[in-house]
Amino acid sequence: AMSSLGVNAKHPNLVTTSEDVQLMRDAINVEGRFATTYKKLKAQVDAQMQQPMAVPVPKDGGGGYTHERHKKNYQLMYNAGMIYQLSQDEKYADFVTDMLLQYANLYPNLPLHPARKMKSQNPGKFFWQSLNEAVWLVYTIQAYDLVYNALNASEIKKIEQELLKPVALFLSEGQPSTFNKVHNHGTWATAGVGMAGFVMNEPEWVEKALYDLQKSGKGGFLKQIEQLFSPQGYYNEGPYYQRYALFPFVTFAKAIENNQPERKIFEQRNGLLLKAINTTIQLSYNGLFFPINDAIKSKGIDTIELVHGVTIAYGLTGNTGYLDIAQQQDQIILSGDGLKVAKALDKKLATPYQFKSVAFGDGNDGKQGALVIMRSVTEDSDFNSTQTVLYKPAAQGLGHGHFDKLTWQFYDAGNEIVSDYGAARFLNVEAKFGGRYLPENETYAKQTVAHNTVVVDETTHFNENVEVGNANYPTLNYFETNNFGTVSSGKISTAYEGVELERTLALVNLPGLDNAVALDLFNVTSDDKHQLDLPLHYHGQLIETDFPLVGNTNSLKPVGAKNGYQHMWLKAQATPEQGLAKVTWLNENGRFYTQTSLVKGNESFLFTQLGANDPNFNLRNEHGFIRRVENTKQHKFISLLEPHGLYNPSKEFTLEAASRVSGLAFTEQDQLALIKIDIAERSYLVVINQAETDQKLTTEFKYNNKTLSLNGRLAVYELNNQ
Amino acid sequence: AMSSLGVNAKHPNLVTTSEDVQLMRDAINVEGRFATTYKKLKAQVDAQMQQPMAVPVPKDGGGGYTHERHKKNYQLMYNAGMIYQLSQDEKYADFVTDMLLQYANLYPNLPLHPARKMKSQNPGKFFWQSLNEAVWLVYTIQAYDLVYNALNASEIKKIEQELLKPVALFLSEGQPSTFNKVHNHGTWATAGVGMAGFVMNEPEWVEKALYDLQKSGKGGFLKQIEQLFSPQGYYNEGPYYQRYALFPFVTFAKAIENNQPERKIFEQRNGLLLKAINTTIQLSYNGLFFPINDAIKSKGIDTIELVHGVTIAYGLTGNTGYLDIAQQQDQIILSGDGLKVAKALDKKLATPYQFKSVAFGDGNDGKQGALVIMRSVTEDSDFNSTQTVLYKPAAQGLGHGHFDKLTWQFYDAGNEIVSDYGAARFLNVEAKFGGRYLPENETYAKQTVAHNTVVVDETTHFNENVEVGNANYPTLNYFETNNFGTVSSGKISTAYEGVELERTLALVNLPGLDNAVALDLFNVTSDDKHQLDLPLHYHGQLIETDFPLVGNTNSLKPVGAKNGYQHMWLKAQATPEQGLAKVTWLNENGRFYTQTSLVKGNESFLFTQLGANDPNFNLRNEHGFIRRVENTKQHKFISLLEPHGLYNPSKEFTLEAASRVSGLAFTEQDQLALIKIDIAERSYLVVINQAETDQKLTTEFKYNNKTLSLNGRLAVYELNNQ
Ligand SMILES: [Zn+2]
Ligand SMILES: [Zn+2]
Repeated sequence: AMSSLGVNAKHPNLVTTSEDVQLMRDAINVEGRFATTYKKLKAQVDAQMQQPMAVPVPKDGGGGYTHERHKKNYQLMYNAGMIYQLSQDEKYADFVTDMLLQYANLYPNLPLHPARKMKSQNPGKFFWQSLNEAVWLVYTIQAYDLVYNALNASEIKKIEQELLKPVALFLSEGQPSTFNKVHNHGTWATAGVGMAGFVMNEPEWVEKALYDLQKSGKGGFLKQIEQLFSPQGYYNEGPYYQRYALFPFVTFAKAIENNQPERKIFEQRNGLLLKAINTTIQLSYNGLFFPINDAIKSKGIDTIELVHGVTIAYGLTGNTGYLDIAQQQDQIILSGDGLKVAKALDKKLATPYQFKSVAFGDGNDGKQGALVIMRSVTEDSDFNSTQTVLYKPAAQGLGHGHFDKLTWQFYDAGNEIVSDYGAARFLNVEAKFGGRYLPENETYAKQTVAHNTVVVDETTHFNENVEVGNANYPTLNYFETNNFGTVSSGKISTAYEGVELERTLALVNLPGLDNAVALDLFNVTSDDKHQLDLPLHYHGQLIETDFPLVGNTNSLKPVGAKNGYQHMWLKAQATPEQGLAKVTWLNENGRFYTQTSLVKGNESFLFTQLGANDPNFNLRNEHGFIRRVENTKQHKFISLLEPHGLYNPSKEFTLEAASRVSGLAFTEQDQLALIKIDIAERSYLVVINQAETDQKLTTEFKYNNKTLSLNGRLAVYELNNQ
Repeated sequence: AMSSLGVNAKHPNLVTTSEDVQLMRDAINVEGRFATTYKKLKAQVDAQMQQPMAVPVPKDGGGGYTHERHKKNYQLMYNAGMIYQLSQDEKYADFVTDMLLQYANLYPNLPLHPARKMKSQNPGKFFWQSLNEAVWLVYTIQAYDLVYNALNASEIKKIEQELLKPVALFLSEGQPSTFNKVHNHGTWATAGVGMAGFVMNEPEWVEKALYDLQKSGKGGFLKQIEQLFSPQGYYNEGPYYQRYALFPFVTFAKAIENNQPERKIFEQRNGLLLKAINTTIQLSYNGLFFPINDAIKSKGIDTIELVHGVTIAYGLTGNTGYLDIAQQQDQIILSGDGLKVAKALDKKLATPYQFKSVAFGDGNDGKQGALVIMRSVTEDSDFNSTQTVLYKPAAQGLGHGHFDKLTWQFYDAGNEIVSDYGAARFLNVEAKFGGRYLPENETYAKQTVAHNTVVVDETTHFNENVEVGNANYPTLNYFETNNFGTVSSGKISTAYEGVELERTLALVNLPGLDNAVALDLFNVTSDDKHQLDLPLHYHGQLIETDFPLVGNTNSLKPVGAKNGYQHMWLKAQATPEQGLAKVTWLNENGRFYTQTSLVKGNESFLFTQLGANDPNFNLRNEHGFIRRVENTKQHKFISLLEPHGLYNPSKEFTLEAASRVSGLAFTEQDQLALIKIDIAERSYLVVINQAETDQKLTTEFKYNNKTLSLNGRLAVYELNNQ
């Protein structure tokens, strides 16, 4: 492989090649998305070049002036370099050269950054941590590559010897533990150093970036591809961090593909990187990522990292479904692949991207549980508005993971209905704890009670211990999607000592009904008696309960004292009688939702609102209710979530504001769970085959003296004529 | 005028004429908005005609089956009649005829409606109240007119003698108090009866509809035009009811115009009806009506009543600004004017509708205070996103009015920022108090504390007495809009005995700043000592206060015991020291807002959240803070509202999250109020001329030893170089 790096390598030749540039130069003269994007960026760069150039001596930590200035600089050098290639106007190359020379003057005398964390193993020089320094190199080496042909020999010498090579060495030999680490920070370092190797003709650097400093293969980029994603391309920390981690992967891989196509980097591990891009898209609803773990809820498929990912994926595959996503992203990248996307969109070649019901195996072997998506998809579904369930029998997801084993979320008509709080954070808002994760992220958002899963004795899963959480994960019992809907089951016995949590969720199509319904069977068994809580966090305004509430109308107290309970006000409570217990709310999307629980008279319902013990008003005041059973060794929480009706005060009509469920019954026959649902004056039998293996799923059973046959995990039978 | 009704009147000739129909028949064969609308309505009517026809014996009150059925019937007859005219397919006429004959069979034997209110002076027969009966006639007489030419003589006789004439007589001679009343219910009755007069050649009915039963001119449609709107076309109850009241006015007026153009009905009272349509549009922000008084907040310019209004206004004036609104309404009316709108939109003739800063005089003389709108409009403003102030030194607005003298609201970037609760109601949601106004509409939404205006001694304006409220109203001191912005002042001394409330609001453009700021000077003077509260209800998440809060973090109690206070939880409080006191929140539009108050150390701030004493979860849990001064005879609440910055977690940037105000000073020189604002490292002097009359507004004054001149009510001086 080393031989493929010629002495006189062409420039540019990283993400964008000189062949790409030829085509791109033609395209900027033709009306269309690409030319528009070029003109916009050029105007932006022109404006920024009017400002005085500043390469300040590093001083501030994250968010501070010098930190932000150096971040802006690498972005600006990259953009100006690209404008140089496309416009062929030397002034842009001169600008980049000047800045690189200023950096080359500055760097040799720089000590470690003054704002670094003491005892940290990964300080930077321009930045307080070397992660930022690696990102700086990824951009800057591309900028250098873009202006290389405009440089004279002494400039090349100075910039390479005084700046780029020392930085690359600092980030590799200088920080072996970070560089060799199979971790997303390592990916930035290997990407920067490897790309520097291509540009500056240092094939050894490329080898080290790919296989670690010892070229052992125990670390490095290839190991990262092998370890950091599951075989289906799922990243352990969840979609919010997946799209962030993805960026150096696809950037470096594209550079490898252009320099060493013989490595077939995109074919590694059965096309892992393409799967990772695709999975990132699948992990969204109505354009936003599922907000599991530490996640800013407004992040979605239009984030710049995924724009790059989708652009590269389309360039590699020509799959027109990616154009659908590119269209929603509404941003064109100035690169060879970006040109392909722009031209294809101009020609209106986009076809609907297919969102799927799927279980993404978790962990690098794909066997540490799974993250499950269920979508009530029909032929011509608008994926942005269909009923969707996210079910999470997944692993902890490291330090940003939440203690939410087996939690779920429900989406419909564009909105979150059964919600996850996401991260407690106001990104970059200084007044809110410096814009970092708020204290309430630990005290509330990560806690189990902040999620829609069982809490035992008001204690968080794994006793809130991240290491224990990372070492233990749920089992995915099964997942199946068929014409009746999608069903999945998972369990975990390590979240609490002596307690097994097992949950089966199904998104079921009932023939003749407009919307799919979600069935939830949550079985808790334990050695000793416990208090079991199952919260449901809903988005909307409570419309009614079909059981009387006792409201705390004249004073409020928190539901509990710790583990997140201290942040919830107890607004009302009730213990519904045996039978059905319904809670109906109205979402901002104008639809009603009713959760019908099948209760035995021993479940209390506690209605909550967030905001207690929150002196700085850091929490959103969201609503939920907790189903509680006390002093029990075993309990099965059974419920059905039903979307219904429409509230349109603007047009002055309201349809089906009341739940249409009149009956819900649960029985079991051997391994079969039988759920009878009476709804909208029809009756259905939903059967879930809970067999331990997938071996013998074809079976017969009797119901109401009739023999019915089942082939698979899930079936629906209409009972109307019985 | 009577002579213009010929014995053989043409049909149809009400809102739509036979000449219109000729053009409309041509248009349905040409691709475009009109044809699309026609096809859609035809498909809808076809589907409805498949259902069995039902003309049930009246039984149910509002919302019940027979009530809703009869409402659907008149709409269906009207639509089918129109489809008959356009398609010339007899089956539609036959359908309408059949239904009319069924009604004619039913009506003669009907007693008063069984669900009528006892002792009511206006029961109906098809409906529990005659208002619905009048609406029925307005639609049904038009349907009859549309199918008239397909009827034979015996059908005509039966339908007219057994149904239409008796109904018209019942609604006129049969209920003189309603028919003669100068009230919106009377408008429906006169519209129905007058239009029946045109169709059935009863010129006397038209005269009575126009001048009252005695033809005295003391009542009737012309008197309604004279009395029910202010000279500027503002309807006393506010925009939510204005768009509703408007409908029979424009419908009947259009029929009069077509039958008796010599009456020049649209020129009455200086073109009042066109002004009323136009004012209804002006009373909106980003497509939604200002939610003053009892108002459902999602109602806006796309309501069907205003679609009719805008259609007729465009038909009359050809003003292409109306097309901008029609485009936003996105609904075409099948009528002669509707065709004009559709064709013009197809030709892309729309030009931006000009929203204005304006004071709409209230009351029929326009002198009972005013409803004031201020918009920070520039040449190419996007009116849906500019800073906008609604200021309400307006009259009570009858039974649906709120006790909110001198309240205000603030809008920016598409959203409500300083908000009004609107009505407490879930329209047509049975579980929420039958879909009617909720009890909390009385106990909270109408109360003064639910608004952004002063409450004395925790008591509501006029002691919550509607009659007293209707009899008293504020004075509009002045209103002026110029290049510096807009300023308005109002006062009232009858809301509380012995207390004068005077408020001056200004929306001010500060040169060099991106956004206008809102200045609020609220002066309270009284004979005795009182507790004064000034609430501000904000939409968004509290970001910070620049003074320490004492939070009720572990238990909550209501702020007070009655008059709305019982519904607000007291979340935190503080008494900021003398100087500036800032409260910053983040709206969902991604912008920050800071209210900077100039305090003397005697104002407490009480932070509140709605939801106390609300056992049925009927209230939205919105936030506010109350500035409170106790035991005082006089107080001036001074504050500045400043939009700033941008929060974009999706793109990972946050700009100017902190207020840029560093100084605020208030002084007075004779009748001049001088407000010095230090903001974004600039200094400005805002001067408001509070002179009692508009006579001598040109003046000179000294500031910092400099002589400045003022010409008008409002001016801004830059002080940077001093
Ligand atoms: Zn979470
Ligand atoms: Zn109000």
